[in-house]
Amino acid sequence: MIIDCHGHYTTSPPPHEAWRKQQVASRSSAAPMPKISDDEIRESILGGQMKLQKERGTDLTIFSPRASSMAHHDGDAEMNARWSELCNTMIHRVCGLFPRNFVGVCQLPQAPGVAPANCIAELERCVKELGFVGCNLNPDPSGGYWKDPPLTDRWWYPFYEKMVELDVPAMVHVSSSCNPNFHATGAHYINGDTTAFMQFLTSDLFRDFPTLKFIIPHGGGAVPYHWGRYRGLAQDMKRPPLKEHLLKNVFFDTCVYHLPGTELLAKVIPVENILFASEMIGAVRGKDPDTGHYFDDTKRYIDALPALSEADRRGIYEGNARRVYGRLSAQLERQFKA
Amino acid sequence: MIIDCHGHYTTSPPPHEAWRKQQVASRSSAAPMPKISDDEIRESILGGQMKLQKERGTDLTIFSPRASSMAHHDGDAEMNARWSELCNTMIHRVCGLFPRNFVGVCQLPQAPGVAPANCIAELERCVKELGFVGCNLNPDPSGGYWKDPPLTDRWWYPFYEKMVELDVPAMVHVSSSCNPNFHATGAHYINGDTTAFMQFLTSDLFRDFPTLKFIIPHGGGAVPYHWGRYRGLAQDMKRPPLKEHLLKNVFFDTCVYHLPGTELLAKVIPVENILFASEMIGAVRGKDPDTGHYFDDTKRYIDALPALSEADRRGIYEGNARRVYGRLSAQLERQFKA
Repeated sequence: MIIDCHGHYTTSPPPHEAWRKQQVASRSSAAPMPKISDDEIRESILGGQMKLQKERGTDLTIFSPRASSMAHHDGDAEMNARWSELCNTMIHRVCGLFPRNFVGVCQLPQAPGVAPANCIAELERCVKELGFVGCNLNPDPSGGYWKDPPLTDRWWYPFYEKMVELDVPAMVHVSSSCNPNFHATGAHYINGDTTAFMQFLTSDLFRDFPTLKFIIPHGGGAVPYHWGRYRGLAQDMKRPPLKEHLLKNVFFDTCVYHLPGTELLAKVIPVENILFASEMIGAVRGKDPDTGHYFDDTKRYIDALPALSEADRRGIYEGNARRVYGRLSAQLERQFKA
Repeated sequence: MIIDCHGHYTTSPPPHEAWRKQQVASRSSAAPMPKISDDEIRESILGGQMKLQKERGTDLTIFSPRASSMAHHDGDAEMNARWSELCNTMIHRVCGLFPRNFVGVCQLPQAPGVAPANCIAELERCVKELGFVGCNLNPDPSGGYWKDPPLTDRWWYPFYEKMVELDVPAMVHVSSSCNPNFHATGAHYINGDTTAFMQFLTSDLFRDFPTLKFIIPHGGGAVPYHWGRYRGLAQDMKRPPLKEHLLKNVFFDTCVYHLPGTELLAKVIPVENILFASEMIGAVRGKDPDTGHYFDDTKRYIDALPALSEADRRGIYEGNARRVYGRLSAQLERQFKA
């Protein structure tokens, strides 16, 4: 089985995002929830993510709401709670319609300046009632101004306690940027990844939460490329070697859109810490004129790595995801029976 | 000749930084300039950068004030003008004492919220009077809150006009971070690099300034690792191919502290766009226990790349720097005669 741990519902039927738009414009959540039929959802998936799964030979996507539309900076805690609920319910419906192809990961009702303990109830609902296996955690709810405390601050601890209790990991994933300095998918996303890793490196977070797990998407931002810098910084700061200090808790996905980058990732990061992902349908949608294949057809890059053993490849494609998403295997069994 | 295009005066005699400290504490520049003798400067260099040049087999460092101490967010325009003047004068003294080993690049008196036209006078002084060949331009004078306009905004244009007129490039280099989310050398530096590249990518800056040149340090942040993402984003946005769109104007240094990263850089970025650099004495000071060599001994990584021809290597070590820093060769001739 080939599990893609990073897919977003970027193709949701238009009334879904339209509801948020009017909510933000009116600063009110009073409008009735959009009416979207199962057929509309089927159509949005069959022509999009499912089509690509088949074409590319992947089996299952760990699926979450569109990251750029979380836009926690556009709302307050109450607005974002209604919006998250709506987005997560849509994901649940996708998983219900295609139980062999999608497992859910939830958006959280974070809001700038609001302690993330406010996200516990929605996480519990999604995990316990909807069968979700993880969440997307935004390290910068201010959308590019980075005004909230670092991920390693006690501000986040009550939420982490619930993650640990429920045995669900978080993908560290920023949303869109309202700071004109940062292009969302070209700068803010990658910076968010790099920033989170360095916050973890300088902290004792995983001494406090030995079983807490994070996936850093987009191939870990700049981290694998600068692995020598991070190893050196950790050593200069008298931190333990990174493998021991962070790699029981921090994992990287493979959303790197060219072979040399994927090669580097697999060369410097232990195979056990790499989870297959494509981010599709996501940031880059075209074909690479040099190869004739889609930039985000990341499976081709993994398949092209001669240094990987078959066991390595199975880990990247399936085993590591089953280990990091502790509830995944049981949830898959439930969904496959459905 | 082996030219290191990225070295900072991180070993300046203590009274130098002490002056800034009291300036920031008192919000006044009235204290007399620190008295620092030529012998103190000689000592700070002979035991530091010169020693490492010799040990590592490099010849010349394009040398600038300590990047983290620019701290434009700590002062206002007037304070930063005095501080830049002092820092640049120190660099000039180093170049005067060791004319065969150091050529100057200046710090600028940027300040949060102040249009960068205020830096023109100091750039002119440094280039015309002190023989400097470039400048360090901080894309975020707010120190991690990113409050000023992107580098591609007309806000910066008067300064760029002067750079073009003087034929000097800028290294895009943030300073320290006062935002607790960003570790300086582990996150803010790398994010600044990635951010600047994406600003350039989305703009027509080099249509307006066809001869303007930037060096993006730290191996270009995350950019080479995500080269497929950037090529794909440019294509989706209907921008020209990156080689044509950016690579006549944007260059990358080799401050990447492990062999696989340097390999990747040389594989995806055209050799003409790569300038040798070590950032020493800089962000990482220890030895890599896996190799027994200093992490920032970046020459070893370049020397270890079998795919480079001798001509490629000469370009990375010398030719590209002489081309990008248009005043370098003439200045070197002057300094070698001194």
